[in-house]
Amino acid sequence: MVSLKLSSFTHFFSSPSTTAISHRSPIILRRRFRQPLAATFSAKSTAAETTKDKVDNSKNKVPDRVITPRSQDFNAWYLDIIAHAELADYGPVRGTMVIRPYGYAIWESIQEYLNVKFKETGHSNMYFPQFIPYSFIEKEASHVEGFSPELALVTIGGGKELEEKLVVRPTSETIVNHMFTQWIHSYRDLPLLINQWANVTRWEMRTKPFVRTLEFLWQEGHTAHSTPEEAENEAKQMIDIYTRFSYEQAAIPVITGRKSKVETFAGACKTYTIEAMMGDRKALQAGTSHNLGQNFSRAFDTQFTDENGQREYIWQTSWAVSTRFVGGIIMTHGDDAGLMLPPKIAPIQVVIVPIWKKDDEKMTVLNAALSVKEALQSSGIKVKLDDSDQRTPGWKFNFWEMKGVPLRIEIGPRDVSSGSVVISRRDIPGKQGKVFGISTEPSILEAYVKDKLDEIQSSLLERAIAFRDSNIVDVSTYDDLKAAISQGKWARGPWSASDEDELKVKEETGATIRCFPFEQPQGIKRCLMTGDPAEEVAIFAKSY
Amino acid sequence: MVSLKLSSFTHFFSSPSTTAISHRSPIILRRRFRQPLAATFSAKSTAAETTKDKVDNSKNKVPDRVITPRSQDFNAWYLDIIAHAELADYGPVRGTMVIRPYGYAIWESIQEYLNVKFKETGHSNMYFPQFIPYSFIEKEASHVEGFSPELALVTIGGGKELEEKLVVRPTSETIVNHMFTQWIHSYRDLPLLINQWANVTRWEMRTKPFVRTLEFLWQEGHTAHSTPEEAENEAKQMIDIYTRFSYEQAAIPVITGRKSKVETFAGACKTYTIEAMMGDRKALQAGTSHNLGQNFSRAFDTQFTDENGQREYIWQTSWAVSTRFVGGIIMTHGDDAGLMLPPKIAPIQVVIVPIWKKDDEKMTVLNAALSVKEALQSSGIKVKLDDSDQRTPGWKFNFWEMKGVPLRIEIGPRDVSSGSVVISRRDIPGKQGKVFGISTEPSILEAYVKDKLDEIQSSLLERAIAFRDSNIVDVSTYDDLKAAISQGKWARGPWSASDEDELKVKEETGATIRCFPFEQPQGIKRCLMTGDPAEEVAIFAKSY
Repeated sequence: MVSLKLSSFTHFFSSPSTTAISHRSPIILRRRFRQPLAATFSAKSTAAETTKDKVDNSKNKVPDRVITPRSQDFNAWYLDIIAHAELADYGPVRGTMVIRPYGYAIWESIQEYLNVKFKETGHSNMYFPQFIPYSFIEKEASHVEGFSPELALVTIGGGKELEEKLVVRPTSETIVNHMFTQWIHSYRDLPLLINQWANVTRWEMRTKPFVRTLEFLWQEGHTAHSTPEEAENEAKQMIDIYTRFSYEQAAIPVITGRKSKVETFAGACKTYTIEAMMGDRKALQAGTSHNLGQNFSRAFDTQFTDENGQREYIWQTSWAVSTRFVGGIIMTHGDDAGLMLPPKIAPIQVVIVPIWKKDDEKMTVLNAALSVKEALQSSGIKVKLDDSDQRTPGWKFNFWEMKGVPLRIEIGPRDVSSGSVVISRRDIPGKQGKVFGISTEPSILEAYVKDKLDEIQSSLLERAIAFRDSNIVDVSTYDDLKAAISQGKWARGPWSASDEDELKVKEETGATIRCFPFEQPQGIKRCLMTGDPAEEVAIFAKSY
Repeated sequence: MVSLKLSSFTHFFSSPSTTAISHRSPIILRRRFRQPLAATFSAKSTAAETTKDKVDNSKNKVPDRVITPRSQDFNAWYLDIIAHAELADYGPVRGTMVIRPYGYAIWESIQEYLNVKFKETGHSNMYFPQFIPYSFIEKEASHVEGFSPELALVTIGGGKELEEKLVVRPTSETIVNHMFTQWIHSYRDLPLLINQWANVTRWEMRTKPFVRTLEFLWQEGHTAHSTPEEAENEAKQMIDIYTRFSYEQAAIPVITGRKSKVETFAGACKTYTIEAMMGDRKALQAGTSHNLGQNFSRAFDTQFTDENGQREYIWQTSWAVSTRFVGGIIMTHGDDAGLMLPPKIAPIQVVIVPIWKKDDEKMTVLNAALSVKEALQSSGIKVKLDDSDQRTPGWKFNFWEMKGVPLRIEIGPRDVSSGSVVISRRDIPGKQGKVFGISTEPSILEAYVKDKLDEIQSSLLERAIAFRDSNIVDVSTYDDLKAAISQGKWARGPWSASDEDELKVKEETGATIRCFPFEQPQGIKRCLMTGDPAEEVAIFAKSY
């Protein structure tokens, strides 16, 4: 039963002071093992080990033991994976994060896919300054209310106190509208469809690597339209792209829907969201798309001349996915052995571990391993050959499992003689996931590997769907809802009650409305809280 | 003769206040013409024009007139191109810049090339937080001296005064070293080769779009090595990558060399640079690569255990190219008609302008234009079909010339009948650059277009080399140097004088040592200033 309070999820990363340099928890430091960073950054092979390294090495024979079991402490498990798989590290300023190469490569996979989809749907990339005059933030009433507690402010520039404080962007709607007002004149300038890849800053008190950090990376789309229908279609189109990405690339079966009024973005008319169920059954809001209506265009006087010569305010949307998604991938697929990456976003899809005992075997095995690597690489598969001689094959097996690589190829002297390899799946532990005697004939091997990668991709999604569906309970009363939430599950039930009732649920159960899902059951419904007619079911869950 | 003072280059963009919202110069506003933004962002076709638009349109029949001639006022010409080709706009905070889609697409071309080269040479991307504790900046003596006047400081976070001020990164050496100290333990962790694509902030007083802005985008590479030789090789390898990029992609014949001690990066032992000659013959430092020696590792105690078990400080490099490079491209190749882009970095390599008079011709011409577009696109050429019916072909010719598109294809009814097109080169004006009767048979047309694009690429480079070489004067005395500089040229001469002499040259002529070029003349040399023996020639020039 997972019933940790929010603070227990974050105390490793948060510190009560707002500015103090963060001190890594001694627990994390103790657990931290020294695997050769160089292996990640270059293929340079090295010579004899120092005494100190030998000591480290003896520890490292069982690297899997250093990860806290997921069932024992989900938060500790999550932080262990991030440290040991070298996804991220703590920045010197409280709540900031250094994204390390392996973690950044996952973000690059996300970027590559989305960037293409954005361009296919007519959006252009551009870049807005990150410093926003403080007065801009104040222009849209609910926007300032939502963001002002979280702002980082620049007050000194070039050694001088500034006349007006500058906000380090928490999101860019205000500065975007300031520019749109200058660029948009007539209906012929619309639609205006843009996106930027950028860093944003929100002064969060409770932080957690990837999930909620003081600074994070994201893309933010901003669009302007001449009709409300067009803006609504755009907002839905973009949440649909996020949904497809989640299912098809990240193997995360998100539930897509509309936020309640209480949970709508500060300044939006409607917020669409993709909600993902993590391994501890808490919900993660993994992406949002907002129909902003005319809220910002009225605040910034962004008007256009329509086809009849009338001046009108533009209709807008904004939508974003951030590095938080990397946290969602970790918490959806990982297990006790560590990270488990869907092949389509894995920076390394196949790791080759050569095995030899005698020196005369080494050359033969390494040559065979290299041929396999080149064959797979030339067919577009992302392969890593771990030819380091500082670690045993067993250590390497555990290490790359912990790093979540979908497939492992083992090659020993006997395999070389028989022209075959052994292939193990990350998602099926032990002998069941291991197949012997796969031919190294390039066309056969490539086809086999691609086939297996596809199988793993589907299998991860199916598993996540089964997990999700077995943890959503249909409820028709508030008591049902409370029971479901106290079991750590999601509750789905008809809802037409007030904002006050929604806040009462939050206070009494810790759960919030995650969304009114697009997929709705047929038939007449009665609100679980009031018994009044309800048009829709809502999903309630505890969340990150 | 170009002899504008620095202030005249920047008064459009700078304002005396450090924080005031920038007010666009009325000159720029007056010159600004309204071309349909929608054409850039979507292919949406529209209906009748409003009266207001008709007025605009009549102006737009001669859009080339709105660009100040280059020979008349280089700075005004540069700013006109940036505004009219929609490369960038002014941000609301003084000295900040909004990079618009067409300008950002040029930056994406730069990124795509460099990102691949960095990975090929073993570097991994990652991301460091942009907030750096103020105390970090103070650790390396010359670094703090170089950067402290330019810092933007966050003093308030989440509504509270911070205990320690945070620097918005001007560059990341300090935070990188803070992290390297935690990641690097033994020689086996080296080399550590990383890069990040990020925004950086420097509180510059005199700003100019792309060339010097308060916030800009760049990549910054950071590497750690176990020997000084390895660090030196790395620094040289990276300046070599920048040099190749400049010549082969941007068609900019930079001069590569070493900075003088006075001009070396704050905290570096050696700075290598690529120096480009702009159209006004001022120099632009377009990229740098620093050998940092052990300066930062000593300041941050970044040590490793070598093969003999001894603790040693690491040897480091850092290297960067920024959005400034976009300014370099504009100022190298542009002419009175506007921007001129080298095909390899042009977001649009070919624009197709269909021409029709009668309505019954329109369909035939547009269909033929579409076929040409699809044929070229499928062979990897970046094509834009300007099928809008709101502008005349003549207007479109001028507009796309102004945007610097390397090749234009014209298709009219007679061309359709004869199965051919007319092709015009951006780099050769008028009839000389125009060829009639190129067959629309896909294989012939594709081959012809690719061939022409290659020719233009080479031709731009050759032209820039000729311009550069005719504007570098070999000097052997200080009088020679003064004469060359006063003619707006670069002076190249033997130099072994003191730092004080170097500063005197700057004070008296406005020129600085741009570099000691890697390519050095043979033979015994005497310092142009002192007459003492000199090992190297230096290049002096006024610069941005």
